[in-house]
Amino acid sequence: MELTLTTFTPTDRTTLKRLPKRGQFDHAIVFGILDEAFICHVGFVSEGKPVVIPTAYARIGEDMYIHGSAASRMLRSLEEGIDVCLTVTLVDGLVLARSAFHHSINYRSVVIFGTAKLVDDPAEKLKALHAFTDHIVTGRWREVRQPTESELRATTVLKLPLVEVSAKVRTGGPIDDEEDYQLEVWAGIVPLTLKAGLPIDDERLNGIEPPDYARNYSRKLGAGD
Amino acid sequence: MELTLTTFTPTDRTTLKRLPKRGQFDHAIVFGILDEAFICHVGFVSEGKPVVIPTAYARIGEDMYIHGSAASRMLRSLEEGIDVCLTVTLVDGLVLARSAFHHSINYRSVVIFGTAKLVDDPAEKLKALHAFTDHIVTGRWREVRQPTESELRATTVLKLPLVEVSAKVRTGGPIDDEEDYQLEVWAGIVPLTLKAGLPIDDERLNGIEPPDYARNYSRKLGAGD
Repeated sequence: MELTLTTFTPTDRTTLKRLPKRGQFDHAIVFGILDEAFICHVGFVSEGKPVVIPTAYARIGEDMYIHGSAASRMLRSLEEGIDVCLTVTLVDGLVLARSAFHHSINYRSVVIFGTAKLVDDPAEKLKALHAFTDHIVTGRWREVRQPTESELRATTVLKLPLVEVSAKVRTGGPIDDEEDYQLEVWAGIVPLTLKAGLPIDDERLNGIEPPDYARNYSRKLGAGD
Repeated sequence: MELTLTTFTPTDRTTLKRLPKRGQFDHAIVFGILDEAFICHVGFVSEGKPVVIPTAYARIGEDMYIHGSAASRMLRSLEEGIDVCLTVTLVDGLVLARSAFHHSINYRSVVIFGTAKLVDDPAEKLKALHAFTDHIVTGRWREVRQPTESELRATTVLKLPLVEVSAKVRTGGPIDDEEDYQLEVWAGIVPLTLKAGLPIDDERLNGIEPPDYARNYSRKLGAGD
């Protein structure tokens, strides 16, 4: 299967110019990618130059929430409500073709353009923190100590609506040139997945056993909302 | 261990403002991250707004090469030699603390600022394509059909020198508030790694068996140069 493009509101920026046949419009694809991943790369412009920073996020309905310290440079800019590009990428496999030229990577990515705004309302901020925690581990929020008022104040949360959104997906094996299929070269896919290892106990646990969600962690199962 | 910052040539942009104690200067850390990962997020400014796109890359010495089609919008801009921010992130684990506030993620990231320039010289371009292929699978280049002249022309390669570079690394378990250590909550790390599954044969292989590098694929072993 070729790359596909999913767009909520197609704009100049989210209309794929190279391969328009890959276009596709589907909220489920976008939400599936955003719920499986938990790190995004946020781009913004600082003094006319691009800056890209990895950060954690959560989705609530049709809004993205980005988590970060108010002291970081990214958020000092974003607090004013600035243009961002938020990109989420999942790598699914290496595509090994018979020619160097046709090597590729299977991936799913979402690109979101928009203006990120600071979340001021304490109730909305708490809802976002709940989503951040449960996006990492479903159900974790209710087991841990909740944020104090000063922790809540110390946490900067930004909101970006899912309006100008596109997704690109590549799946399937290599597409070789017809004459290359006779070459004596192995071709196919090496699937890649982010896998969890055995949980590592904190040194000061005093015998508390790791819960199932830590023993059998999976992004496929653990997707947030 | 706390976050660390590694910078080749510290500048305003690569000097971490929030936690200066995390600063560290070491080429080996930067190269280790760049060689283990193979997807970067490239940010650039298009009509005053940020754009962030995932793409493949390879490192040759102290230069980064970015791979892409000349037809994509990113490269139409980058060909002129434009400012980019290239960010590479490896996620190593989830850090589950006893309070929601202290949850964190173990990761290693590199941020590179600079001007990306189009590679025109065919010999340098071929060297970069060699590095792209072998960065995905070491030794693959010599087994597959080499690029034709027209494939070489159809491939756009951009070069970004590793000059203004910083790295951030978080390792280790949660750091909880002293009074939270008494809580009956499991805390620790859920390690995460990009793991390869069994190789999937292309449909038209005619019995060629997958090589060892596809059967036992690992980014830790397979790092490029």
